[in-house]
Amino acid sequence: MSNGDIFVGELIGTAILILFGAGVCAAVTLNKSKAQGAGWVVIAFGWGFGVLAGAYTSAPLSGGQINPAVTIGFAIEGSTKWEDVPFYILGQFAGAVIGATLCWLLYLGQFNLNAEEDKAIETLGIFSTRPEINNPVQNLITEIIATAALMLPILGLVGGDKHVAGIGDAGLPVLLISLLVVGIGLSLGGPTGYAINPARDLGPRLTHALLPIPNKGTSEWSYSWIPVVGPIAGAAIGAAIYNAAF
Amino acid sequence: MSNGDIFVGELIGTAILILFGAGVCAAVTLNKSKAQGAGWVVIAFGWGFGVLAGAYTSAPLSGGQINPAVTIGFAIEGSTKWEDVPFYILGQFAGAVIGATLCWLLYLGQFNLNAEEDKAIETLGIFSTRPEINNPVQNLITEIIATAALMLPILGLVGGDKHVAGIGDAGLPVLLISLLVVGIGLSLGGPTGYAINPARDLGPRLTHALLPIPNKGTSEWSYSWIPVVGPIAGAAIGAAIYNAAF
Amino acid sequence: MSNGDIFVGELIGTAILILFGAGVCAAVTLNKSKAQGAGWVVIAFGWGFGVLAGAYTSAPLSGGQINPAVTIGFAIEGSTKWEDVPFYILGQFAGAVIGATLCWLLYLGQFNLNAEEDKAIETLGIFSTRPEINNPVQNLITEIIATAALMLPILGLVGGDKHVAGIGDAGLPVLLISLLVVGIGLSLGGPTGYAINPARDLGPRLTHALLPIPNKGTSEWSYSWIPVVGPIAGAAIGAAIYNAAF
Amino acid sequence: MSNGDIFVGELIGTAILILFGAGVCAAVTLNKSKAQGAGWVVIAFGWGFGVLAGAYTSAPLSGGQINPAVTIGFAIEGSTKWEDVPFYILGQFAGAVIGATLCWLLYLGQFNLNAEEDKAIETLGIFSTRPEINNPVQNLITEIIATAALMLPILGLVGGDKHVAGIGDAGLPVLLISLLVVGIGLSLGGPTGYAINPARDLGPRLTHALLPIPNKGTSEWSYSWIPVVGPIAGAAIGAAIYNAAF
Repeated sequence: MSNGDIFVGELIGTAILILFGAGVCAAVTLNKSKAQGAGWVVIAFGWGFGVLAGAYTSAPLSGGQINPAVTIGFAIEGSTKWEDVPFYILGQFAGAVIGATLCWLLYLGQFNLNAEEDKAIETLGIFSTRPEINNPVQNLITEIIATAALMLPILGLVGGDKHVAGIGDAGLPVLLISLLVVGIGLSLGGPTGYAINPARDLGPRLTHALLPIPNKGTSEWSYSWIPVVGPIAGAAIGAAIYNAAF
Repeated sequence: MSNGDIFVGELIGTAILILFGAGVCAAVTLNKSKAQGAGWVVIAFGWGFGVLAGAYTSAPLSGGQINPAVTIGFAIEGSTKWEDVPFYILGQFAGAVIGATLCWLLYLGQFNLNAEEDKAIETLGIFSTRPEINNPVQNLITEIIATAALMLPILGLVGGDKHVAGIGDAGLPVLLISLLVVGIGLSLGGPTGYAINPARDLGPRLTHALLPIPNKGTSEWSYSWIPVVGPIAGAAIGAAIYNAAF
Repeated sequence: MSNGDIFVGELIGTAILILFGAGVCAAVTLNKSKAQGAGWVVIAFGWGFGVLAGAYTSAPLSGGQINPAVTIGFAIEGSTKWEDVPFYILGQFAGAVIGATLCWLLYLGQFNLNAEEDKAIETLGIFSTRPEINNPVQNLITEIIATAALMLPILGLVGGDKHVAGIGDAGLPVLLISLLVVGIGLSLGGPTGYAINPARDLGPRLTHALLPIPNKGTSEWSYSWIPVVGPIAGAAIGAAIYNAAF
Repeated sequence: MSNGDIFVGELIGTAILILFGAGVCAAVTLNKSKAQGAGWVVIAFGWGFGVLAGAYTSAPLSGGQINPAVTIGFAIEGSTKWEDVPFYILGQFAGAVIGATLCWLLYLGQFNLNAEEDKAIETLGIFSTRPEINNPVQNLITEIIATAALMLPILGLVGGDKHVAGIGDAGLPVLLISLLVVGIGLSLGGPTGYAINPARDLGPRLTHALLPIPNKGTSEWSYSWIPVVGPIAGAAIGAAIYNAAF
C-alpha cells in the first residue's frame, strides 16, 4: 500500500463511517425525521453498520482501519508500520470532517428547523460524544475499557501478519467487527456514548464548531481530550495484552 | 447472461424486494396488522432483508442488482455493459409493479378496512417515499448523498470484474449489502424515507395510482422525479469516486 | 441419507424450531416473563433464529428442511426424492409436537398463572397462528404469497443439485435463510402471523388442545386448514416459478 | 493447546463475555445511562454479541468455549479431553469475576448514584440471573431445556473432531453461535433470565457480593445453585442426544 492509498482509503472509509454514525444520531434526535425517538438499539446498529460500510469500502485500498486508536493498536501489535501511521491518521481525521459535513447536508432541512426555536438546541450529541455524568476520571476509565474491548477481539480475529479483512478474505471479518461495534454500543455505551475512536469524536466536534447550524449550542471543548486520550490508551492496553498472551 | 435472463432475474428479484419493502411499511402502518406501530427499526430491517431475499433469488440469473441506479453505477464503473442496461431496468420496473401488487393482495383485508373511514387515508407511504420537509433541493441532496453511500461500498465490495455475488461467492456479499441497506435506512432515511432506487419508488407509485384501494389519497406525482433523479445522480457520483480513487 | 436419519434429523430440528418460535411468543405474551411486551421485532428475530438453531442442528443428518411445505417444494423442484417426503414430514410433525411441549415446560410457571384468572386467556397465539381479520380467502392468499416468497429465495440459494446447507457449506446458507425468515416475519406477517409451515402451525395446535393449561381458551380448529393448505400451495408455486425461470 | 493457553484464553474470552453481558444489563437498568429502558431486544443482542467478542478473542488460544456447561458437553461428546476440563473451568470463572469487575468500573459513576437513594436498589440483576417466579423445580427445568437448546445446535455445527471455530474456520461458526445465543435470550429467557452458563452467573454473583456498591441489595445465594446445576445438566443431556442421534 502506498501512502496515497492509505490516506485516500482511510479518508473515504472514515467519511462513510461518520456519515452513517452522525446520521443515525441525527435520525433519532431531530424533529421531522422519520426515525425520531427510535431508541438506543437504532443508534447502536446504525454505528455498527457504518463500520461495515466504511471498512469494506476502504479495505481494498488501506485495510479499513478507520480509527486512529485501532491504527496505533495495530502499530503496537506489529501489523502496521509506525512510519505509515501518520498517513492513516491524517486520512481518518480528514474523512471524519467530510463525513460530518455530509451528514449536515443530508439533514439540512431538519437542522435548519432549529432556527424557529428561541433557545440553544443540543445538536452536539449528533456529532460528538457527551458523558451522562461529567467526571473526567470515570469517563476516561469508561473509554479505556471500552476501547480495549474493541482492540482485543479485533486482534484475536485479524492479528498476526493479517490486516483487517479485505476482499480476499471475503469480508467476514468486517462483518464480525461491525457486529462487535454494535455490541460495544449496546453494552458499553451507556456512560459516555462510546467514542472508542478519536477521529469519530474530534473531527465531528470541529465540524460542529464550524458549521452554520442555527441555535446549535456549545461544542464542549473542555471534554474533547477524553475521547482522544481514552481510546488511544485503551487500544494500547488491548494490544499489549494481546502481545503478552497470544 | 442472456438478455432474457437479465430481464427475468431482475423482474423476480425486484418483485421480491418490493413485496418485502412495501410489505413492512404496510405491516407497521395498517390497522389490524400484528406489526402495527413497530417502529423504524422494523422498517429498516424489513427493507434490508428484502434486498437479501431479492438479490440472492436473482443472483444466479442476473447478478441481483434490482436497482436501476446501481445498474447505471455498474455501467459507469465498467462491470455492466451499457447495451444490457435497458434489460436490467425494464425488468426492475416491471418487478416493482408486480411486487407492489403482491403486497396489496397480501394485505388486502387491511387495505379494505379503509373503506370504513370517511376521509382519505395516507396509504402512499406504504408504496413510495414521502419527504418529511417538502423542499426539492434538500430532498434531492439527501437522495444523492444516500445513494452515493450505497454505491461506493457496493463497488468497494464487488467492483472490478466481479458482479454482485452469486452462489459461487457463497452469498456473503449479498448479506453485507443487505446490512448496508439496513444501515442506510437507520442512518440516512430520516428526511426522505430513502428511495435510493428509482424502481422502488416509481413502480409502486404507479401501482398505488392504479389499484382500487378505498380512500387511498393522492399519489403525489409532483414529488416523483426526485427519487428517480437523485438516486441516479448519487450512484453516478459514487461510481466516479470509485473509478478515480481505486 | 437413510430414512431414519431423515426422520430423526427433522424431528430434532423442528423441535428446536418450535421451542424457539413458540418460546418467543410465550416470552412476549405471558405475565411474569422478562420479555413481556417486547414487540414484533422480537417475535420476528426469535422465529428467525429458531430456524437458524433448528436448521443447522439437523443439517448434518437430514439437510435441515424442518418445514413440510419446503420439503414438498424441494420435491417439485427435484432436489428431494418423492419417496423420502413422508419421512421428512412425519419427523417434522413429531418434532413440532415435542417442541411445543418443551416450550410449555420451560414456561410452566407462567402458563400456570392463568389459573388465577376467571376467564379464558388467549394462549393459542403462543402455539399457532391466528388471523387479524377472519376471511378464509384473504388469509389463504396471504399464506400462499408469503410461502412463495420463502421458497423462491431458498431455491435461488440452494436449488439445483444442492440441499440446504450442511457443515460442508460452512453454514452461510442457513444464516441467510434464517434472516430471510426474519424478513418474512417483519414484512409479511401482519395479516395472519405467517405460518408458512404446516408443521409449525398444526403440531403446536394439537399440543395446545392436549396440554393441561388452565383457562387456555379455544384451539380454533376451524382455521387450522389454512396454515396447512396455504403454505403447501405457496411452496409449490414458488418451485414452479423456479423451474420455469432458472 | 497447552494448559496455560486454555486457562488464559478462557479467562480473557469469558472476561469479555461478562463485560459485555453485565454491561448491557447495566446499560438498560441504571440511571444516567444512555440506554436506560431500551428493552429486552437490547439485552438479548448485547449478550449475543458478547459471545461473539469473547469467543473469537479466545478462539486462537483455547477454542472459545467460555462456558463450563459447554466445556462439559464437549467432554461428554468427546471433542474436549476430560483432563483439560479443569483448566477451562478455572479460566472461565476467573474471567467472569474479572469481567464483572470491569463492568462495575465502566459504569462506576452510575453505580455510585445509588448512594443517593434511601433504600436498597436491585443491582443483582445486572450481575446474575433472577427468576420471575421463584420455584426451584420450574427454574431448574427452564435452565435445563434452554441449555440443551444451546448445546445441541453447537454440536450440530462443530461437533465431531472440530472445536469451536478459530480463525482457520473464518469465524462463521462463532457468528452463528452468537446469533443462537441472541435467539435463546429472545425466546427462552423469559422465566429465569437464561443463565445457560454457570460461570456467567456464579462469577458475577461473587463479584456483586464483594464490590462496594452503595445500597446494592442482596446477592440471593439461595438461588445460586440453580444456574450452576441446570446448565450443566442441560448441556449433558444435549451432548447425550447428539451422541445417540448423530
